[in-house]
Amino acid sequence: MSESTNRLRLAMIQMEVTENKRKNISTAQEMLRQATEKGAQMAVLPEMFCCPYNTKSFPVYGEPEGGPCWQAMSEAARENKLYLVAGSMPEFEEGRCYNTSYIFGPDGQQIGKHRKMHLFDIDIEGGQHFQESDTLSAGDQATVFDTAFGKIGVAICYDFRFPELARLMVLDGARILIVPAAFNMTTGPRHWQLMFRSRAVDNQAFTIGVAPARNPRASYVSYAHSIAVSPWGHVIKQMGIDPGIEIVELDLREVIEIRAQLPLLKHRRTDLYHLKCKANVRGKTKKE
Amino acid sequence: MSESTNRLRLAMIQMEVTENKRKNISTAQEMLRQATEKGAQMAVLPEMFCCPYNTKSFPVYGEPEGGPCWQAMSEAARENKLYLVAGSMPEFEEGRCYNTSYIFGPDGQQIGKHRKMHLFDIDIEGGQHFQESDTLSAGDQATVFDTAFGKIGVAICYDFRFPELARLMVLDGARILIVPAAFNMTTGPRHWQLMFRSRAVDNQAFTIGVAPARNPRASYVSYAHSIAVSPWGHVIKQMGIDPGIEIVELDLREVIEIRAQLPLLKHRRTDLYHLKCKANVRGKTKKE
Repeated sequence: MSESTNRLRLAMIQMEVTENKRKNISTAQEMLRQATEKGAQMAVLPEMFCCPYNTKSFPVYGEPEGGPCWQAMSEAARENKLYLVAGSMPEFEEGRCYNTSYIFGPDGQQIGKHRKMHLFDIDIEGGQHFQESDTLSAGDQATVFDTAFGKIGVAICYDFRFPELARLMVLDGARILIVPAAFNMTTGPRHWQLMFRSRAVDNQAFTIGVAPARNPRASYVSYAHSIAVSPWGHVIKQMGIDPGIEIVELDLREVIEIRAQLPLLKHRRTDLYHLKCKANVRGKTKKE
Repeated sequence: MSESTNRLRLAMIQMEVTENKRKNISTAQEMLRQATEKGAQMAVLPEMFCCPYNTKSFPVYGEPEGGPCWQAMSEAARENKLYLVAGSMPEFEEGRCYNTSYIFGPDGQQIGKHRKMHLFDIDIEGGQHFQESDTLSAGDQATVFDTAFGKIGVAICYDFRFPELARLMVLDGARILIVPAAFNMTTGPRHWQLMFRSRAVDNQAFTIGVAPARNPRASYVSYAHSIAVSPWGHVIKQMGIDPGIEIVELDLREVIEIRAQLPLLKHRRTDLYHLKCKANVRGKTKKE
């Protein structure tokens, strides 16, 4: 890997999500332009960036792969010549609806696609209630894709609660774990930063979480606080609650250095326990 | 489980470890007496509580199972009528030396035994160097044991770095994960609290870490800061650096409540990934 691909300037796009799908798409387009002007080589949008985060909206705002929002994001990647993890949007296929993240290369080609594998069905006493499975179906594959900056894994929000999935992505070669997400006001203050820091430290990878800006009038209030964490668990940047763009520069050599000094991945007792992926990691057969 | 076994008063014994094995044993005995007077029903000693934490000392201070330090701890459990996770000590068996935690019931019987599975071999630039494998052999089993307060898992220090092991103990029924440990001045400030909080949240279990008190003159300086964390990731108590005893009261119903409200363990996609334990969990066959 050359010097130029050891450093990645990644933009976290903490955008406001409204009830107007077209407006959300044009907000994303505009912020991606701004991120490119600021020197971004890769950009990440939030979970459900084109659709209010509630179960009734998913079937209304959805579209099949290749639909208008997909098209707009493919073009945005190409026009700005950047890698784009296009947050997530509701995807229709064969009568089902998925929470799907499309990933585009700088030429606008789709280079990855992740469907949320773990649906968010919780009911916390005095806190958040949500039942994604009312209208969504779950994906069935972990997602790791190749870039000029090495392999990157993508998961969506609640997916990242499960240490197994983060581990599988890293065992498949990921050095950066990117998570479009939308934690809420119950779990956000308690677990958001903790989760991104611990997954980074345990897996010796960069972790990136990008959420919608806070909108107190929404039915589901996003905790916001988009975050980038180093493989040592250092918070490189945590945003506030307002809309904005933050560019973080990731020095990917840190991953290699830390894995040499504190060889956690090597020290796993794979002779005694074994994390097996039954499904394929998207696009390839996964074996530990 | 009755009302009386839903609440556990657990003593963290953050003791000073000297170069004098006999003195260390008598310090532990005295502090266990004090913990009992304070109402403890279970007590936890630090990693290598009878032996300086360095590779040269392990073969000098060690003894076989049933040796003098083992005897003293069995008697202390019986005399004080408490469950005792006796930190760890160097154990000799068949020409090998292990970093071993013996667990005793209130009648003094050994009810569990864990040998550190992941040896601590690290070399951090400008930071901590250590090579446990110079003199120690690794254990080959996860450890979960039964008590009147339900199942409890025990791991030793670096073992807890590996999310796989914590998960295996919890899948085997553990609601409390107890970890005699001794983080250092490089990793302690960065990762100690993070690790205990994240393992607690991910596994919806109480986590307990007990370390030796800080001794700046030791060859390996313990970070100390013994800690107890709730299944929500709340730090119930974190000690300072001085020797002392802290009693924490764990309300074990919290585990059940939180697993119902945010069903992380149930939501694992075991149809897609599978954490398999190749070895037996000590004392029983482990299958997910």
